[in-house]
Amino acid sequence: VKFIVEGEEEVGSTALSTFLPANRELLKADVVLVSDTAMLPGNVPAITVGLRGIVALEVEVEGPSRDLHSGIYGGAVANPATMLCRMLSSLHTNDGAIAVPGYYDEVVPLSQEERAMLAQAPFDAERFMREIGVAACIGESAFTPLERTTIRPSLDINGMISGYTGPGSKTVLPSKASAKLTARLVPNQDASVAAERIARFLREHVPSGGRATVSVGHGAEPVVVSMDHPGYRAASQAMAEVWGRSPVPIRGGGSIPVVALFHSVLRVPPLLMGFGQDADAIHSPNESFGVENYLKGIETVASFMRHYVQLISQG
Amino acid sequence: VKFIVEGEEEVGSTALSTFLPANRELLKADVVLVSDTAMLPGNVPAITVGLRGIVALEVEVEGPSRDLHSGIYGGAVANPATMLCRMLSSLHTNDGAIAVPGYYDEVVPLSQEERAMLAQAPFDAERFMREIGVAACIGESAFTPLERTTIRPSLDINGMISGYTGPGSKTVLPSKASAKLTARLVPNQDASVAAERIARFLREHVPSGGRATVSVGHGAEPVVVSMDHPGYRAASQAMAEVWGRSPVPIRGGGSIPVVALFHSVLRVPPLLMGFGQDADAIHSPNESFGVENYLKGIETVASFMRHYVQLISQG
Repeated sequence: VKFIVEGEEEVGSTALSTFLPANRELLKADVVLVSDTAMLPGNVPAITVGLRGIVALEVEVEGPSRDLHSGIYGGAVANPATMLCRMLSSLHTNDGAIAVPGYYDEVVPLSQEERAMLAQAPFDAERFMREIGVAACIGESAFTPLERTTIRPSLDINGMISGYTGPGSKTVLPSKASAKLTARLVPNQDASVAAERIARFLREHVPSGGRATVSVGHGAEPVVVSMDHPGYRAASQAMAEVWGRSPVPIRGGGSIPVVALFHSVLRVPPLLMGFGQDADAIHSPNESFGVENYLKGIETVASFMRHYVQLISQG
Repeated sequence: VKFIVEGEEEVGSTALSTFLPANRELLKADVVLVSDTAMLPGNVPAITVGLRGIVALEVEVEGPSRDLHSGIYGGAVANPATMLCRMLSSLHTNDGAIAVPGYYDEVVPLSQEERAMLAQAPFDAERFMREIGVAACIGESAFTPLERTTIRPSLDINGMISGYTGPGSKTVLPSKASAKLTARLVPNQDASVAAERIARFLREHVPSGGRATVSVGHGAEPVVVSMDHPGYRAASQAMAEVWGRSPVPIRGGGSIPVVALFHSVLRVPPLLMGFGQDADAIHSPNESFGVENYLKGIETVASFMRHYVQLISQG
């Protein structure tokens, strides 16, 4: 059993992406088990059979060379915050789809059978909305809310800033405005192609009088996990043993760059058996991980190893 | 001679606005001299004969009750930053005019004579653009750049913020997004009417699935200064005496709330004789005020008093 512990998952696993190809022999394995995924509500076991890819972008719009007095200059000088808003507004259709031309060209449509299989995962839209305090879901109307967050691409503003943001008022016309974006990708989108399409689209939408820099950050390809591998069967048996029922195959909306790397660099099938819960509030303030799931997770991994050895020794 | 010193000009002069009506007798005067305006480039003396009014607004768009993981939720949950961008993008036409219905209804058009008089003020558009590092002016094509910043209304984003804005990337779908705005007003716009029009327009443009709060902050009415008053003539003589040439009458794009207050509450004509320069970079980092202009400004004020007494004693 070989362990890899890394702490760069949220920033693109850059160190691991050079370590992996340089240590192929050291890292030789039958299967790579990653426990960075979640179960279904009510601790219903689940195995993640697909992950969205990701690519990060930053856009900065430059206006005047310094913050200006909005009274003296307002009306004759293009405001970078306004220009950025116009650029970012152009990224989505009113339906919530991504408006970048050609963006969906490589997206593999799922068959009705595949969609039906994934629809087995219990998804309570009312509960989903209540837990995050929203009155409605948005997005592509041809897909369910769960599908929109798993098997369809998405593009979100992660942050933006311009000018004066402290208490009270300051009458400046800001010198610049910037935003961070991430796009989630699905098979068979390519991270660098998707990023380049978005970057080009943003550059084409800079209002006249503005200058913008669009830079592409870390990326990871989308992943699909095979359900025909003995690793999947062993994980399924282990979860059934410890959690009392067979796991549901699900597609995850998030991205785990190392999973795509293990797959593409080491040619080892990844297996995503995780123990998180929606209530963990990952990436939010006060993120947590339940002690019960932590302890039963350890049991499940041990059980997985027993079952995996049994399965492969049976041939 | 009565002196009033206040330090709240940039935040709406709230204390003075209660002090003034409560102390009408104490503050009785023939003329109110305010030195918070600028000269023309090259220290060409100028007297400001009009100021734009101002009104400040804040808009906050609320989405989910906490920052969400953009992978797990992206595609099904409305992003407050995107919603804010769409709302702010709707405020202007492509021409740079304000798109709020009825916004120009009360704006008094200036006659060709008035526009010609103000056009005497030397304005070098190339230099204007070079000094602030922009390649082009934007705004209403029917007006000169100088007119757009003085006799026409403007509406600027002063600041906006949402989600993660630190170094690197954080894949959140933010829970909220907010912006600060100020509108500059011209005669005969009313600050509260203009604010209410903008606020209503923004509320009407909240995308479905979003909740927005629009609040109105400090305001000041636009001001026009009479050139027929002995105060204007005395200031003109004083500037000619100290700076070597008669001042040019100009309209200022900024706002000085106390000037509107003196006029409306005390019924005393205001007089705007200031000594600032464009190079002072007011409201920008490293704002300054030249020592030469400071000292000659003192001389000019003393000269103004002599000339004013002479003029009114002549009857």
